[in-house]
Amino acid sequence: MKWSEIDAEPCSVARAASVIGDRWTLLILRDCFLRVRRFEAFQARIGLTRPLLAARLRKLVEAGVLMKVVYQSRPTRYEYRLTERGLALHPVIMALVHWGDEHMAGDAGRPILHRHTACGHLFDPVSVCSVCAEPLRPEAVRVEPGPGARNDAGAP
Amino acid sequence: MKWSEIDAEPCSVARAASVIGDRWTLLILRDCFLRVRRFEAFQARIGLTRPLLAARLRKLVEAGVLMKVVYQSRPTRYEYRLTERGLALHPVIMALVHWGDEHMAGDAGRPILHRHTACGHLFDPVSVCSVCAEPLRPEAVRVEPGPGARNDAGAP
Repeated sequence: MKWSEIDAEPCSVARAASVIGDRWTLLILRDCFLRVRRFEAFQARIGLTRPLLAARLRKLVEAGVLMKVVYQSRPTRYEYRLTERGLALHPVIMALVHWGDEHMAGDAGRPILHRHTACGHLFDPVSVCSVCAEPLRPEAVRVEPGPGARNDAGAP
Repeated sequence: MKWSEIDAEPCSVARAASVIGDRWTLLILRDCFLRVRRFEAFQARIGLTRPLLAARLRKLVEAGVLMKVVYQSRPTRYEYRLTERGLALHPVIMALVHWGDEHMAGDAGRPILHRHTACGHLFDPVSVCSVCAEPLRPEAVRVEPGPGARNDAGAP
């Protein structure tokens, strides 16, 4: 299978990965959630070449994850903001951060702490069930074919 | 910055992405959580060439995400199982699936449904605060430098 065919596959991980399954794109999204918005700021923080950064930002705009908003005229300059679809990636980024914190931080400890302004405490993200609100454990999750499953096969 | 330097950067997203920030790797991990364990099964489902699949599996073993377990001798054959560190990626994969379900499934609807065997219901994953248990919203999260932050700069 070619990667270009992946977003037509009936798998939500494959579809999501076709948009954000790129290491630099994950860093760009991390920065978006840290309120970075301008091309030069992304570049200074991530260190990607201008053409490569521009290509990834363009792809995120095309995918509806970021939108370009004019912040200056003469000359016209744009900044990049998360759309609703982009903001919905917050749990993905938080889950990645948390795994990195727990499993890749080494002896130095985690580089960033997260504070939940709603309750005021430093926190970790926890993935819970939308029905019973209990933390999800991998062995307690089973899959079933959904309406968008391929007709000729089970899941996925 | 070169990607090879990224996992030394004090950023947990960058470190996590250096291990799993690859589209094929995300599909392999998805399959691991669907109880796929054998090389031929991964290959049949994902369609990656044998050398490329082998390289990615090897990298995941080196990163401590998967372990090779003998399931047959004469000839010796191995299967790949998630380690504790690998099982800890479940929230990342579930968050990706959910975003793909919500934002990429199109008119056909989601390809897979998830059932929580602990409560018996079909569910979505929800990312909540470990302290107050309320769902996390991006605008309610602030970052602060942690013990592993770079000395010469703030976060990250």
